[in-house]
Amino acid sequence: MNHFEESLKFHQKLKGKIEIASRIPEFDKEILSLAYTPGVAQPCMEIHKDINKSFELTRRWNTVAVVTDGTAILGLGDIGPEAGMPVLEGKAILFKKFGDIDAIPLCIRSKDPDEIVRTIELLAGTFGGVNLEDISAPRCFEIERRLKESCEIPVFHDDQHGTAIAVGAALINSLKLLNKKIDKIRVVINGAGSAGIAIANYILKLGIKDLIMCDKFGIIDEGMKELNAPQHEISLKTNRSHKRGTLADALKNADVLIGVSVGNIVSQDMIRSMAEESIVFTLANPIPEIPRDDALQAGASIVGTGRSDFPNQINNLLVFPGVFRGALDVRARNINDEMMLAAGYAIANAISDDELSEDNIIPTALDEKVHKEVAAAVAEAAIKSNAARI
Amino acid sequence: MNHFEESLKFHQKLKGKIEIASRIPEFDKEILSLAYTPGVAQPCMEIHKDINKSFELTRRWNTVAVVTDGTAILGLGDIGPEAGMPVLEGKAILFKKFGDIDAIPLCIRSKDPDEIVRTIELLAGTFGGVNLEDISAPRCFEIERRLKESCEIPVFHDDQHGTAIAVGAALINSLKLLNKKIDKIRVVINGAGSAGIAIANYILKLGIKDLIMCDKFGIIDEGMKELNAPQHEISLKTNRSHKRGTLADALKNADVLIGVSVGNIVSQDMIRSMAEESIVFTLANPIPEIPRDDALQAGASIVGTGRSDFPNQINNLLVFPGVFRGALDVRARNINDEMMLAAGYAIANAISDDELSEDNIIPTALDEKVHKEVAAAVAEAAIKSNAARI
Repeated sequence: MNHFEESLKFHQKLKGKIEIASRIPEFDKEILSLAYTPGVAQPCMEIHKDINKSFELTRRWNTVAVVTDGTAILGLGDIGPEAGMPVLEGKAILFKKFGDIDAIPLCIRSKDPDEIVRTIELLAGTFGGVNLEDISAPRCFEIERRLKESCEIPVFHDDQHGTAIAVGAALINSLKLLNKKIDKIRVVINGAGSAGIAIANYILKLGIKDLIMCDKFGIIDEGMKELNAPQHEISLKTNRSHKRGTLADALKNADVLIGVSVGNIVSQDMIRSMAEESIVFTLANPIPEIPRDDALQAGASIVGTGRSDFPNQINNLLVFPGVFRGALDVRARNINDEMMLAAGYAIANAISDDELSEDNIIPTALDEKVHKEVAAAVAEAAIKSNAARI
Repeated sequence: MNHFEESLKFHQKLKGKIEIASRIPEFDKEILSLAYTPGVAQPCMEIHKDINKSFELTRRWNTVAVVTDGTAILGLGDIGPEAGMPVLEGKAILFKKFGDIDAIPLCIRSKDPDEIVRTIELLAGTFGGVNLEDISAPRCFEIERRLKESCEIPVFHDDQHGTAIAVGAALINSLKLLNKKIDKIRVVINGAGSAGIAIANYILKLGIKDLIMCDKFGIIDEGMKELNAPQHEISLKTNRSHKRGTLADALKNADVLIGVSVGNIVSQDMIRSMAEESIVFTLANPIPEIPRDDALQAGASIVGTGRSDFPNQINNLLVFPGVFRGALDVRARNINDEMMLAAGYAIANAISDDELSEDNIIPTALDEKVHKEVAAAVAEAAIKSNAARI
């Protein structure tokens, strides 16, 4: 039985990875009259008088909706909303395990951004936050932007920002280990979809000055007609020397390659053409842009992938539980840049200088301590940046 | 500390009555790769190929959305969607306790039936059923009707049908005890809102021939200009002798009064004017239409109320866990008349002839056996009426 058959059997046997649990251990007539009618009228009226009380008298304070429209499930593409539910349920158990957060999976039967936005807006009173999941680009940018404007609770597209923060943390530690300065290096990102563009924006905020993005058609330069709206926007902030050409052209003398594209698209020659002590993060999953061993053999000093069976797994599981835990703990109105930068540094700092090595640039997501440190850093940043409401 | 203060304190301490639980007790890297990436791709693809597999590979088969717009919360009226959440969470713990069902509370920030219907339609792939809760009349009729037409999963407005089924069960047993024939008696329902109209439709199906409905303006008769659309519809099936007048006029020689209106609206004289061995169900809560002792003193043979501190509590908690359990067990496409009638008879039959008495016409909802019997009867009726899909 291969791994995929084993997973299918696991899901068939389990019949759902999450369930609802009552927080009332015992109950009798008296408890019933407190928790339900007639007693429940009192907390209802308290919330009616002050809507903020919904964060104290119901589970809203700890509840996050995990929402997909099924258009970009894993690397499988547009397979339909119901088909995304196994991913959402998986995410929910991770939210619980690493963030002690109650995540409610919701799949939406529409691909229309207006309908998706409206559905989530109408439900926002139910939740303390919204995690958008596996929504295709470029729609995901518009959906997130509009929801961030209209909702009073944090909205976070994990495929963008979770990935960006994990990459950022790995980059911070790689540069520290190799003693390279963040404002002096050249970075190439291959793949200008939701993850690639979010990574670009994030590492620009970390201090990267020289950044080139590539997509299927090669290097992205301002004014190219192939660009969609989000790519156009990022083209204004990257490739300031207006290079044109292929990924191979972009990689010459680059210090860092960040691949969020497809498997086996990078050759050993391309790696050889990079600067000394190069950093290669190949996040295409399950098949990376170049096999790890090939990249190392071609001279890369540090290789990170999305896979759990190699060292340096760059995994957004390091990010979302702690980011939402921190945001919920201070009832943040949003998840802003300051909070996201704090999360990246907290993940990086979870590895001490002594522990840092080519095969240990980022902590494992199974280490519960990391998530607590991320949560604390995010909560602190929320308070400092006036995003916190308590 | 009074009961309401006690309930508030209970809710403040609990900070939410439900939470999400992981069904995966332990986990390590290997389990993570089965439950999440990369293994989870396999169940996703199975659902993509056959959408029915979402009932086998995710929790959908056991999950019911409990949805309100906050317009008719308990007897409190339109207090807003977030203020309805304590009721929804209470309902969720009851769904779990008595039906072993995972209920997800959702409050919708809209009073527009179009938006409410569309929101639920778009989310229908997430759930195995939808329980509408505390939505005001007459909007609730349209919302339920449209959702029943467009959704492939059961949609059930508990305030209508839960109440109707519980009343029906109490009526069946009361008539048995008093040896009155269902097609020979006269019934008066006071209150032509969602519960009153649903009760009327339900007891007509049980075999009641002579039924008069009253609302604030008195007896409802076909063609009266005061009627809203659902009241007009029910006026075509009730009061076939076209009586006009007040509630007091209607009650003269009536065998049964079913009150779903407001407290203290019925006098002892009205009860005295009813037929011999009258049956009085006063469901206004917490203050019934006439105090139980007053009704008994004025000659009523059987009195039922909505209160747990009196005998004969007519409680929709007897209904919704078993109805949804039965519907989910056979993956019913809807909850039809046959299933609702089966639920009423199952509740009635949970009291044996030996146990039946004036103070014991309906079982207590805390008896877990009743819910199992309701579920079995509903599942059987679903199969017989071709509503079952497995």
